[in-house]
Amino acid sequence: MEFFFNPKGIALIGATTKPARGGFSILTNLLKGFAGKIYPVNPRYSSIEGMLCYPSILDVPDPVDLAIVFVPGPLVPNVIQECAMRKIPGVMIESGGFSETGDDGKKLQDMLRRISQETGIRLWGPNCMGLVDAVTRHVFSFVSPTIWDYGLIPGDVSLIVQSGMLSAGFLIDTMTHGTMGISKVCSVGNKVDVEECELIEYLIRDPHTKAIGLYMESIPDGRRFMEICSRSPKPIVALKGGKSRKGAEAAMSHTASLSGNGAVISGAMSQAGIIEATDFKQMMDFCRTLATFPSVPHNLPGRVAVLTYSGGAGIVSADFIENLGLEVADLSFQTRQTLKSVFPEWMPIANPVDLWPAVEKNGGEKAFRTAVEAVCADPGVDAIFLHLFAGGFSLNFDLSPLADLVRLSGKPMVAWLIGERKQARELQIAVQKQGIPVFREIQRSIECLCALLKRTQRETPWNASVESFRHATASVKWKQVLAMSSSTLDEHVSKQILADFGIPTVPEKTVGSVSEAKAAASGFGFPVVMKGIAPGIVHKSEQGLVRVGIHSNEMVENAFSELRAAMPNGGSILVQQQINGSIELIAGFIRDPQFGPCVMLGLGGILAEALKDTAFAVAPISRKDAFHLMDQIRAQNILNGFRGSIPVNRDALSDILIYLGEIGFACPQIQEIDINPLIVCNGDPVAVDASIQLMTKEK
Amino acid sequence: MEFFFNPKGIALIGATTKPARGGFSILTNLLKGFAGKIYPVNPRYSSIEGMLCYPSILDVPDPVDLAIVFVPGPLVPNVIQECAMRKIPGVMIESGGFSETGDDGKKLQDMLRRISQETGIRLWGPNCMGLVDAVTRHVFSFVSPTIWDYGLIPGDVSLIVQSGMLSAGFLIDTMTHGTMGISKVCSVGNKVDVEECELIEYLIRDPHTKAIGLYMESIPDGRRFMEICSRSPKPIVALKGGKSRKGAEAAMSHTASLSGNGAVISGAMSQAGIIEATDFKQMMDFCRTLATFPSVPHNLPGRVAVLTYSGGAGIVSADFIENLGLEVADLSFQTRQTLKSVFPEWMPIANPVDLWPAVEKNGGEKAFRTAVEAVCADPGVDAIFLHLFAGGFSLNFDLSPLADLVRLSGKPMVAWLIGERKQARELQIAVQKQGIPVFREIQRSIECLCALLKRTQRETPWNASVESFRHATASVKWKQVLAMSSSTLDEHVSKQILADFGIPTVPEKTVGSVSEAKAAASGFGFPVVMKGIAPGIVHKSEQGLVRVGIHSNEMVENAFSELRAAMPNGGSILVQQQINGSIELIAGFIRDPQFGPCVMLGLGGILAEALKDTAFAVAPISRKDAFHLMDQIRAQNILNGFRGSIPVNRDALSDILIYLGEIGFACPQIQEIDINPLIVCNGDPVAVDASIQLMTKEK
Repeated sequence: MEFFFNPKGIALIGATTKPARGGFSILTNLLKGFAGKIYPVNPRYSSIEGMLCYPSILDVPDPVDLAIVFVPGPLVPNVIQECAMRKIPGVMIESGGFSETGDDGKKLQDMLRRISQETGIRLWGPNCMGLVDAVTRHVFSFVSPTIWDYGLIPGDVSLIVQSGMLSAGFLIDTMTHGTMGISKVCSVGNKVDVEECELIEYLIRDPHTKAIGLYMESIPDGRRFMEICSRSPKPIVALKGGKSRKGAEAAMSHTASLSGNGAVISGAMSQAGIIEATDFKQMMDFCRTLATFPSVPHNLPGRVAVLTYSGGAGIVSADFIENLGLEVADLSFQTRQTLKSVFPEWMPIANPVDLWPAVEKNGGEKAFRTAVEAVCADPGVDAIFLHLFAGGFSLNFDLSPLADLVRLSGKPMVAWLIGERKQARELQIAVQKQGIPVFREIQRSIECLCALLKRTQRETPWNASVESFRHATASVKWKQVLAMSSSTLDEHVSKQILADFGIPTVPEKTVGSVSEAKAAASGFGFPVVMKGIAPGIVHKSEQGLVRVGIHSNEMVENAFSELRAAMPNGGSILVQQQINGSIELIAGFIRDPQFGPCVMLGLGGILAEALKDTAFAVAPISRKDAFHLMDQIRAQNILNGFRGSIPVNRDALSDILIYLGEIGFACPQIQEIDINPLIVCNGDPVAVDASIQLMTKEK
Repeated sequence: MEFFFNPKGIALIGATTKPARGGFSILTNLLKGFAGKIYPVNPRYSSIEGMLCYPSILDVPDPVDLAIVFVPGPLVPNVIQECAMRKIPGVMIESGGFSETGDDGKKLQDMLRRISQETGIRLWGPNCMGLVDAVTRHVFSFVSPTIWDYGLIPGDVSLIVQSGMLSAGFLIDTMTHGTMGISKVCSVGNKVDVEECELIEYLIRDPHTKAIGLYMESIPDGRRFMEICSRSPKPIVALKGGKSRKGAEAAMSHTASLSGNGAVISGAMSQAGIIEATDFKQMMDFCRTLATFPSVPHNLPGRVAVLTYSGGAGIVSADFIENLGLEVADLSFQTRQTLKSVFPEWMPIANPVDLWPAVEKNGGEKAFRTAVEAVCADPGVDAIFLHLFAGGFSLNFDLSPLADLVRLSGKPMVAWLIGERKQARELQIAVQKQGIPVFREIQRSIECLCALLKRTQRETPWNASVESFRHATASVKWKQVLAMSSSTLDEHVSKQILADFGIPTVPEKTVGSVSEAKAAASGFGFPVVMKGIAPGIVHKSEQGLVRVGIHSNEMVENAFSELRAAMPNGGSILVQQQINGSIELIAGFIRDPQFGPCVMLGLGGILAEALKDTAFAVAPISRKDAFHLMDQIRAQNILNGFRGSIPVNRDALSDILIYLGEIGFACPQIQEIDINPLIVCNGDPVAVDASIQLMTKEK
């Protein structure tokens, strides 16, 4: 990929002297920052800006290792062919008019893909803004050259953005505000060849990148994406557009992207250690916070000390800290003693630390320095949230000694700032140079601390492939059944398969007569459950085919004849031990179009279903992944033994989740598995009802 | 209150010539904006700024109807006494050193309260920033006079803020950014006399105020607050600090405020039609949006049309619209036809409307005007979300014709803006002058649309008092029992009381012998439930005192003897009809320290408890309030008949909620009522278990 980022010579195909045209902006940007050779190509000119202009790429002398193309769409395939003939390794196609414009454009784009596949030429785009690198000053883009007026501020955050307009707009917004620098912005457009996975790999190696931000509308190869991200030592923040139903429709209309299942995407990202953002500036704020503190230890409790000049702002900060899942730190005795030295006697010492009385007594500088020093030394404090004011109130003082203290302590500190507009902007820029990210809203400050402190980076990378199963022989045993069966397997067969793959299932027996039923019931012990299994009926309860609480032979007899009567087209009858558990879960497997085999866990029962409290992980999953999946359930405390119930045996539950993934790998015929309910009895989960849905066969 | 806002003459007690002192800032601010007479008072000076300075307020000639006090705390009571002697109607005490500084300060503050009560003099503060009115230019505050340099921008939002530092800081922030004007900022500090209720009433009458924003740490008289707010034709936005546990601790430490139960506060606010904010700038953004569109009809579905130049930003907007509870509008056939006229042929027309291809074809002005015109005329569109870019891309055009169109249509439009810093700020100010609120983040834009479109203004005001009950005699019947009883009534007595107040309860009977138990069971029909009721035992299930599914005389016998054995200290045995319902709810009553009698509704069962899915309303509640309370439950769809179950009979449920409130009014001895579970059987809710907790008696 190096020729895309640091080419020796660039041919600009579609160079023009007409301002306000993309070809002119690209040329201007190249001339301002690129130190290598530039070759304008356009048959209409013999020279441009004092440079020789070539009629065709075929006429350009060496060395050219990157061509930037900005000619009308229909001309592009021919141009690419010529580039391939010239053995140019990479082409950045910034023209539009491809798959985003319907069928004709799609055909053009398919031509590009074929050329790339046949000749090996690498294509970036089309329909994109190209590349802006504020560190190397390589601006291979039609983005407005006015960005140079603002210094093209170098920073350590790199972005990959699917949408061209957005990346250009945000770049101008970011540069002109001057409160955040960037390294590379890669606008990849329709991704005919180069896509985010390869770029992420490049940026992971890039020494100028400390954090990576992604805006995506689709994740075509979800498994590769997860493998790469899960290996990244650098934080990756992703904003995935189109996770809601209406958003997905819009994404389909925008770039014909298949958005995918929002819950699966969130699960996959979390599993890969990716931080999810929901809005654009929020993504930038997460990135710059994470880039500022690359070496904050993980798995800290997230105990925050709040240093404020306003009691009210301290209270609202505490509300956000608690509601977003961090902790308001309990200050140590030592810290309290130190703080007492600057406070008036009447002032109770607490966190949030309202420093105003100390500021009135000692001036802002001494009050804040004492407090920062104390919380830096406090072992019960993981991070510091500082409130700043620009423009008076004895709060205008040099923050650099304070920033030095914090840097030495290794603890992250972020700041919230209000105040006089110009002074606030200057203060923000100055403070950020000291390594303290500054925000203008309390919520955003705490969100960024969350992204930093609650980041769950993987200790070991995620592998898409599976080397061995514990229950490999089971797939051989069931191969024929799976090949022969219709679309959904019945409860009994489904559970037999699950049991062979190591999943605990309820003891049960199909019975052909009342006496067999009685024998089965007496074997299991009363009470038992009896069910009618009729072909094609999935919702047995709704069809009156489930009888629970059967506690006598008389009831067995009645149930048997009633179930028979309820299945006029035949069916079999199942006698089951009745499992009375404190907790109902659902667990399952789905084969996702973007991420392949995935496992699912959720709370069971009607309420959980109504609240959609389910979470996903991409198979294969490790024991850690399984535990992480359990942590995603909102009603967490139920798993932990809420109200005196026995906690769920997490090891047993993680086995079930791991095996569900294995079944999906071992049996490619399976589309979906649904264990509902998975009842937890004395801590141990048991599959009580289940169904396996097979792939629809090709006709 | 008029003398606080528009006095004829002001005495400034504590006037000084020393810059950087509050007394100097107040004087400077008065001189800059107040047209009436100003009388500096300070025994150390004979003149200040060319004005005669008086040694004491007693020496000041008339007319003085407001005194502003900025002298050390211990001197304040004497000064107030003198003001009272002079018959000055109002005093604004901006000095600190009162209840916020511990016991001595609290004594000082109590002295002020006494003087006010005895003499009738009205006191504002102490420990506050006073008043800033950008419309009348009355700045009765020590806030930095630099605010005048920025024009003290008049607007139509008024604020009431408990915290002094915060109001001063935010005022400077707001004025210097210039993107929002204000009417009055009232900083009320320790609220020794004047508090938010009276100020809200004043601002409701104030012709310069269109929306009211509140920052509060406590709501001492919750019921009066609700009455006033529920009568307000103007939108009220409130940020209540200290709703989390740690936030409440911080509030207690900051202003010794009792924060109260966060869920009760949220319920009360929602019931009174107040919009809740969680962060400061968000509160300001809600206020300015609501002030811009004072006459948007309520109860619209909230169908939003998104007009964007970036497909990506459109998709993210759609995600927020759906996730925050609004709807992405379905565009009418007519709208689609109109849009087709400006789009290239290949472009599918959908909402969000990605106008970029239309901008390329027709220029920004025509593309946007056509789209705005179309959605303004579309009856399926309730509001418009416009995306703006400042600084190029053919998107710099005059928005005023567009704003005129929108204004005529009566539909609210808000805008999201990114772009070149200076141009973006200018554009924001210009566009807002046209009546279009502008935001810099998509999430905030949609949050503001939500605050506007999902506002549930009351049709009738809420009344704190109750005129008549439907079950007035029941309280007479139970008076003696309630007066005689120990702290918690047992299940059986509790349900008898509930039944007398009209609440449906499960059929049940206390039994003294096995034969009585069998008779009761046969009366109810099997299965029945049997419970042991032992004095002092609240959690019967945990104590093994509940037997369900009793379906034979033999089981009645066993249960009877087992329950007897489980109550070695005696107790009675209850036989109950077993109610099998599809939905378990909890309902109850509590007497809140700030809001008084409140009713509660939540989903029942262990899962709901773990998820804390409960909501509160302040009694008395109307049928509408009861329905509104049901709407607060997160797992809404369960009440509506999820998965084919019968929907809850909302009329029957609202009766129960209304009666729970009535019981609280009729029986002041009751502290708390807990109906758990309230089982919904064929749609009708029945109290299956309940307990009534009485007030702890004074010793």
